[in-house]
Amino acid sequence: MKGILFVLSGPSGTGKGTICKELLKRGIGLNLSVSATTRECRKDEVPGVTYHYVSTDEFRRMIDNSEMLEYAIFNGNYYGTPKESVIKLLGEGKDVLLEIEPQGALQVKQLMPEAVLMFIIPPSMTELKSRLIGRGRETEEEIAERINAAKWELAQADKYSVHIINDELDKCVEDVTAYIQQKRDERVRIENLMNEEI
Amino acid sequence: MKGILFVLSGPSGTGKGTICKELLKRGIGLNLSVSATTRECRKDEVPGVTYHYVSTDEFRRMIDNSEMLEYAIFNGNYYGTPKESVIKLLGEGKDVLLEIEPQGALQVKQLMPEAVLMFIIPPSMTELKSRLIGRGRETEEEIAERINAAKWELAQADKYSVHIINDELDKCVEDVTAYIQQKRDERVRIENLMNEEI
Repeated sequence: MKGILFVLSGPSGTGKGTICKELLKRGIGLNLSVSATTRECRKDEVPGVTYHYVSTDEFRRMIDNSEMLEYAIFNGNYYGTPKESVIKLLGEGKDVLLEIEPQGALQVKQLMPEAVLMFIIPPSMTELKSRLIGRGRETEEEIAERINAAKWELAQADKYSVHIINDELDKCVEDVTAYIQQKRDERVRIENLMNEEI
Repeated sequence: MKGILFVLSGPSGTGKGTICKELLKRGIGLNLSVSATTRECRKDEVPGVTYHYVSTDEFRRMIDNSEMLEYAIFNGNYYGTPKESVIKLLGEGKDVLLEIEPQGALQVKQLMPEAVLMFIIPPSMTELKSRLIGRGRETEEEIAERINAAKWELAQADKYSVHIINDELDKCVEDVTAYIQQKRDERVRIENLMNEEI
């Protein structure tokens, strides 16, 4: 029985990173695949655990060889998900969780139509904006850019399997967990039907 | 606001025809698109309502021009969904319901990734077999073929948006209706976010 590829995505500021951390803490059998990046390894990071650190040439070679499930460039550095490690985990029957930007999520869906895309949405755009301001990572101009990007991303929302609102974190994590369980139940049911002797 | 394309599919004998009729009876704002076929018009049928009746040459021309969203051949006749009429209805903001075989449903999903595919599954293969026998339409050999086809179709189940069991018809129609409502709610919510002034 192959594992399920769950992709958690949503506009910047919807809290997908926090949701992922909560999901992993709950120990519900989700496996993270280690991403690759061309940026330098920071002091507190562990190669092969935090990221696979590769050169820009090597990263570009992997793109050319279709070895990346998705990739994107942030601040001049490449970030991506090597296909091999994801496929290996799924082949071992393990469910995989990817937390990626909407553009990457749609790339994954094109290459693997069976991926389950969960779209995290904010309760309102006003709330999204105040969260972006609140975390204090971006300039005013960058925040305006992120709001614009969010609008484009929302326009693609119908390509996702499900939308989940992140209004209150605990409730949102519960909803994501329930949806993951629903997909697992579907898989078990199909497998039982296929194995039934008639 | 564009309409949503709902596709109801599932192995032969799962009752998708009956479910569709029930959905339409309930008047929940779903529009059927009229299929095209090369088979002859029967006495009780109305051209342009039951089907669009076209010649085999015309049907093949439509396939070659990518004018068919999906098509299949049964008993030597072509059956298919003309893309134009579906796109027109969706453009007018109307939700469309297609009831098609799994192979056609997967064709639609490839051409229109935003289509919502609902997979109707039987409570068990034993039950599916006895329903096929019960309706008395096929020979024993044809039933064995349909069971084999069902196994292939079940193996593609992870490409659908949702699985719904048809154990008890009323319950099943309720579940389908609730899922359609969920998708409509998602669309309204996204639209509200996109229109929000901030």
